[in-house]
Amino acid sequence: MISDVEVPKQNPVSRLLLGRPLPTRELEHQTVSKKVGLAVFASDALSSTAYATEEILVILALAGTGAATLGLSIPLAIGIAILLAIVTVSYRQTIYAYPNGGGAYIVARDNLGEVAAQVAGAALLTDYILTVAVSVSAGIAQITSAFPSLFGARVELALLVIAFITIVNLRGVKESGTIFAIPTYFFLGTMFLTLGVGLYRHLTGTLGVVTGVEVLEGSIQPLTLFLILRAFSSGCAALTGIEAISNGITAFEKPRSHNAAVTLGWMSAILITIFLSMTFLAHQIQVLPSETETVISQLARTVFGRGSIFYFLTTIGTALILLMAANTSYADFPRLAALHAGDGFLPRQLTFRGGRLVFSWGIMTLAVFASLLVIIMQASTTALIPLYAIGVFLSFTISQAGMVVRLRKIGRLQPGEVVKGLETDLEYDKRWRLKAILSGLGAFCTGVVMLVFAITKFTSGAWFVVVLVPVLVVIFFRIHQHYKDVAHSLSLRNIRMDTQTHPVQTLILMNDIHAGTINMINVAKSMGHPWKALYIAVSPEKAQILRQKWDAVIGEGELEIISSPYRQLADPIREYVQDELRVNPTAYIHVVMGHLSMETAWEQMLHQNSVLIFNLALAGLERVLVTIVPYQVHHNGGSVSGNVLTAAQMKEDRDRK
Amino acid sequence: MISDVEVPKQNPVSRLLLGRPLPTRELEHQTVSKKVGLAVFASDALSSTAYATEEILVILALAGTGAATLGLSIPLAIGIAILLAIVTVSYRQTIYAYPNGGGAYIVARDNLGEVAAQVAGAALLTDYILTVAVSVSAGIAQITSAFPSLFGARVELALLVIAFITIVNLRGVKESGTIFAIPTYFFLGTMFLTLGVGLYRHLTGTLGVVTGVEVLEGSIQPLTLFLILRAFSSGCAALTGIEAISNGITAFEKPRSHNAAVTLGWMSAILITIFLSMTFLAHQIQVLPSETETVISQLARTVFGRGSIFYFLTTIGTALILLMAANTSYADFPRLAALHAGDGFLPRQLTFRGGRLVFSWGIMTLAVFASLLVIIMQASTTALIPLYAIGVFLSFTISQAGMVVRLRKIGRLQPGEVVKGLETDLEYDKRWRLKAILSGLGAFCTGVVMLVFAITKFTSGAWFVVVLVPVLVVIFFRIHQHYKDVAHSLSLRNIRMDTQTHPVQTLILMNDIHAGTINMINVAKSMGHPWKALYIAVSPEKAQILRQKWDAVIGEGELEIISSPYRQLADPIREYVQDELRVNPTAYIHVVMGHLSMETAWEQMLHQNSVLIFNLALAGLERVLVTIVPYQVHHNGGSVSGNVLTAAQMKEDRDRK
Repeated sequence: MISDVEVPKQNPVSRLLLGRPLPTRELEHQTVSKKVGLAVFASDALSSTAYATEEILVILALAGTGAATLGLSIPLAIGIAILLAIVTVSYRQTIYAYPNGGGAYIVARDNLGEVAAQVAGAALLTDYILTVAVSVSAGIAQITSAFPSLFGARVELALLVIAFITIVNLRGVKESGTIFAIPTYFFLGTMFLTLGVGLYRHLTGTLGVVTGVEVLEGSIQPLTLFLILRAFSSGCAALTGIEAISNGITAFEKPRSHNAAVTLGWMSAILITIFLSMTFLAHQIQVLPSETETVISQLARTVFGRGSIFYFLTTIGTALILLMAANTSYADFPRLAALHAGDGFLPRQLTFRGGRLVFSWGIMTLAVFASLLVIIMQASTTALIPLYAIGVFLSFTISQAGMVVRLRKIGRLQPGEVVKGLETDLEYDKRWRLKAILSGLGAFCTGVVMLVFAITKFTSGAWFVVVLVPVLVVIFFRIHQHYKDVAHSLSLRNIRMDTQTHPVQTLILMNDIHAGTINMINVAKSMGHPWKALYIAVSPEKAQILRQKWDAVIGEGELEIISSPYRQLADPIREYVQDELRVNPTAYIHVVMGHLSMETAWEQMLHQNSVLIFNLALAGLERVLVTIVPYQVHHNGGSVSGNVLTAAQMKEDRDRK
Repeated sequence: MISDVEVPKQNPVSRLLLGRPLPTRELEHQTVSKKVGLAVFASDALSSTAYATEEILVILALAGTGAATLGLSIPLAIGIAILLAIVTVSYRQTIYAYPNGGGAYIVARDNLGEVAAQVAGAALLTDYILTVAVSVSAGIAQITSAFPSLFGARVELALLVIAFITIVNLRGVKESGTIFAIPTYFFLGTMFLTLGVGLYRHLTGTLGVVTGVEVLEGSIQPLTLFLILRAFSSGCAALTGIEAISNGITAFEKPRSHNAAVTLGWMSAILITIFLSMTFLAHQIQVLPSETETVISQLARTVFGRGSIFYFLTTIGTALILLMAANTSYADFPRLAALHAGDGFLPRQLTFRGGRLVFSWGIMTLAVFASLLVIIMQASTTALIPLYAIGVFLSFTISQAGMVVRLRKIGRLQPGEVVKGLETDLEYDKRWRLKAILSGLGAFCTGVVMLVFAITKFTSGAWFVVVLVPVLVVIFFRIHQHYKDVAHSLSLRNIRMDTQTHPVQTLILMNDIHAGTINMINVAKSMGHPWKALYIAVSPEKAQILRQKWDAVIGEGELEIISSPYRQLADPIREYVQDELRVNPTAYIHVVMGHLSMETAWEQMLHQNSVLIFNLALAGLERVLVTIVPYQVHHNGGSVSGNVLTAAQMKEDRDRK
């Protein structure tokens, strides 16, 4: 019989926050259009323009705030834009090759094996958590630039924002897409307006320079190559997030690859335009990196004037895109974690879909770790940046190297030949050599940048990620080994079936004689096996009283009393049961224990609840079965009645029939 | 059969921290001599001299720091000393009347009824928690007076001290007595030296005045009667702790009452001497109340000079007695909580004695609440004082009023007559009238002081205690009602015995078919009742696979598959079991569920652990029995083996016999 069940009941609060539960069959419908996809998956990449220029300037300013030094930001930005273009082209190839999702994890697993896949995955998962922390911190910094009085509450504000995004994501990706489309396009509007007006005023010579900035203090260092590379690697934060679309291809409407690739193209073009224009204008107006005011804030108030409505709109737009950028990680982290878990490298619970069809465990995990990071780093973007982006660049490198391996396999095919691959079919492509060179170039560049990151930012925080990723990989493999061990242990091939039934010996754990225990004895007798009762006596006086009660009320069966002068309960029970196992080498020892079940948790706390203690006492014993006999204590209008099946009730039952 | 068990095994850490477990028969031996008793029970009372003078001056200083204003401290101190003498005499009577422990709770219960007893108990429990918080905070203040650089870490230091005292007390009272005897006598030594040298220098005219004190800032108020009463009530903190001995009579060696009464006498005499001398000298050297330096520190450095070794010894002695004073509450709070719990007004768990025969739950409860107070109040003595002492004075009043009632009963006896009382015998005493007047005077004075407290400190924190005590009393009575209800419900008189056994229907909850589930089916079959299996299908594909496995591997019995499109597990199971209960109106429904039991908690977390979910699903259902069939997954040198009783193992078992 296969029956169906109704829509589950839900309390009003979770209904309001999370929406109605969705049945599994609606899974297919949770996809997004290109426009919404750009908003959902591009907010991370686009938002990084809000801090990438600033992070370049912060590092260069260590060597002084002269125009020549800070002017280096322009060639650095151009270099970063070229890198971005290469990675974009390379990733378009991946998107077409893997229409069912072409994240670094899948590409690596398909072409480079398990270890590379786990490394890529560990790096990405780490970076998604950092993305949430960095984006939310930068968004709050934007707000506190405009409203300096909120600076003291930035950690609390950041945590509030994380909580809000978490709830939105627990509702599901489609609705969150709609919510996030508006801010993304609002940001793009204000950004193009600011940059457009800025460029116009620059060309007409009416753009002034920024004034009244609190400059970051610090000792002046010489302008070394190391410092320039460090500025470059900090600016590469602009690239983070462009992998988001390749991870989330399955969330796009069909044709998935086409829609995803088009969205990726738009995204990169917009990103390069904004990033270059902003770095150029920032140099023209002589922006100075400051702890209390962001570069965008300085730019916008120089372009529009501080009191202008457009300054505030730009601030709001930037804050919104940053706060919403965190959402990209909420779309990708749970999906990637579920992939790992599905392969047995992370706890299985991460593959469960919640009431709204999203991976609730993954969303909660991300929220918890990101919140911890925000608290530890006190919501400081500059403190978080050194940890950031290494993971993404590591995954870029692995993913593109995987594509090179794949394209070389394709190169060995005959024209027109199609070979079944692990993930997708390998189809002959005459342009395989060009494509392999592109992917190889991408892998090489991102690999070099990653090494530059690790070296230049090592002492300021990158060491943590360099240590963390290998540790995570080891943990992933240990989890995998555990699941393999358990599967082996549970495999039906490895045991000989036991077709015989076994004798059962029932043992009743007593702690008093009252209506509940009488019920328990009735259960034990109904089971129909030989039975006896066991009492652990903490006080000899109570033991004597119990013995008398037993003789008077029960008057049958055997009651064993074990004295426990050290007032232990668990140990004597365990020892007694172990003796029983020795005496009955093939039997199941069936331990029956009572549980007084109260109507509220408060009431329950007023009772001993020894079930837990007893369960611990019997943990790990083979052939021991534990049955809990609940005895419900009701309040009926002030009076109380138990649930023993009395003779009278039984008669009623029979009469009713 | 009554058998004995060995000394329980113990891990090395708890052995080191807590010592070896003690058997119940050693309970009688945990008593203390007069000298140790003074250290254990008097440290609270004696230590209050470290802040009582200061708290008077802090309040008087609100009306200015002129000599005339601060000089009022001397008549106020004399008034407090007289009050102390009255209460001491009154409490000696109580100690003789109640040799088995004469705390306010017992005296009130014996003479004034349950409500008065609960009020007294609630007040005392509240005050014991405050004693720990106040004493530890004042002790840390003493240390930070000498070492101002530690001021920033005062909350952490206070929490550390609470943790230390908690561990010492979990070891048991006798050993903690020995530990605490040294600091108490060390404090008395340094204190008498300071006061002695100070008085000598005053008489010889060589005592100077204090210099270099950071004065508390605040607006000058007029010196009203209200302010003087407030100063008086703050100074009455000196009386807190003198009730400790009457609560702890049973901890004294025999003859208990005599030893306790002698100790009380010593304690009060010492207390009055120190308090009056200190207040007098503080006035002579023109002490100014300050947030960063205590009165004792000012006095000691004026007497000895700041660099003197005696200044540091006095500081250390005062800090130690304060930190150890908290120990008094650790002796009394758990005893009093156990009394409440024994009468059914607090959770029964508070009556359990731990491995070292102490009331571990009570000790932990005290530690948690005191730590919370220290954190909330930031370890500030002045912030805590307004909440303090109201409870003690309320209990003083109730206790002495109870003695008056008792003595009037004695007054109605014939000469030589002895009447059996609830707690102790009522014996004729011709001096009953004098004693009743003394107790009545004590009750009246402490009652008036309590009202002065409540009114003068109401807005600065006392309101909290005024609200808390009635709330606690209501909670106590609700707990009591709950225990009465349950006892009624469990009483054998209220049910008709069910002597018949009932049919049993077994229901196996499946989630897969592997070695563990086969074991589970074997258990169900061994039980010997009609059985069927239930599978909740989250995905239709998995359901089909399970059905095929069932047919191939099990090949018998009935498998019911319920589809759950909303991916719920608990609700469908509950509904199914409820249907079964309807179909079988007299039968027990025996639910068998498997549990994969791992060797470590980390491994366990990698599995679903649905036992909890299922147990919740079936909570509160009558006639439903839940049996958990554990399946132990072992790691044997890298490989894994389950614990299914295979045919081969069974044969081995038989052969061995």
